[in-house]
Amino acid sequence: MPQDKTLDDLFLDTLKDIYYAEKQILKALPKMAKAAEDPELKAGFEQHREETEGHVERLEQIFEMLGQPARGKTCDAILGILEEGKSIIEDYKGTHALDAGLISAAQAVEHYEMARYGTLKAWANLLGRKDAAQLLDATYKEESATDRKLSQLATSAENAKAA
Amino acid sequence: MPQDKTLDDLFLDTLKDIYYAEKQILKALPKMAKAAEDPELKAGFEQHREETEGHVERLEQIFEMLGQPARGKTCDAILGILEEGKSIIEDYKGTHALDAGLISAAQAVEHYEMARYGTLKAWANLLGRKDAAQLLDATYKEESATDRKLSQLATSAENAKAA
Repeated sequence: MPQDKTLDDLFLDTLKDIYYAEKQILKALPKMAKAAEDPELKAGFEQHREETEGHVERLEQIFEMLGQPARGKTCDAILGILEEGKSIIEDYKGTHALDAGLISAAQAVEHYEMARYGTLKAWANLLGRKDAAQLLDATYKEESATDRKLSQLATSAENAKAA
Repeated sequence: MPQDKTLDDLFLDTLKDIYYAEKQILKALPKMAKAAEDPELKAGFEQHREETEGHVERLEQIFEMLGQPARGKTCDAILGILEEGKSIIEDYKGTHALDAGLISAAQAVEHYEMARYGTLKAWANLLGRKDAAQLLDATYKEESATDRKLSQLATSAENAKAA
């Protein structure tokens, strides 16, 4: 039994998990941008793709701070969340509800990231790694802001359609 | 092509998705309670199991409001999130970081639910279903409160260990 595993190990494992997840999200965002009908939503996905590149770079900085190679670890959670998003695109393509479905899929992704970055930030503070905590907090705030923008877009797009 | 799919269809599909997810969570929570070492965390999982039964009942009420049978639809997202939680239990069993890993896994679940209930509540309002929106909001608030409790527990448990 690995009696000696500590919060440091869990921190590193979770860093690998979100590093893998961010790379999967980088691949998914152009597909979501392509599928989106509303120009504002399309632009939002493209902008978030650029932001996501920055999130990957911040994670690489943290791996470096820890003296560890930047390496991902298969993250079943993001694979399931993205798989569900793909089904929504397939099921709702060409319908009036496609954008609403895309927004919903994207918010599930954002919430997964908020959970992971929130946890990682708390652990970084507990482990006395203020340098890592600051980077994790910066990404956490960007993910939260994206989630809020998506919520606004969900309501405004539907209201515009109804008008 | 299903040109006629609307927000009503997406609302119903997403209701089925979270109904399936809640039932999977009901099965996972006793395993998480059993694995937890800290008595407060153990009790928290047990309490959240009872709350989750209430969430399932609220969803059944909404299906009834819509005149639809309460039926789940495989949710790849929750399967992935719970699979990841299972791996954490396996990898950290018997170590000092197990509870921190369990809290992290539980927060990923809560965030998925917050994303889904937030979306469903917004759609219910757009569709003029205030009755459903109220029920969805009640569950949303309970999931958010659970997430906040888990955040507090994450910090207090580690600080207690360090003291």
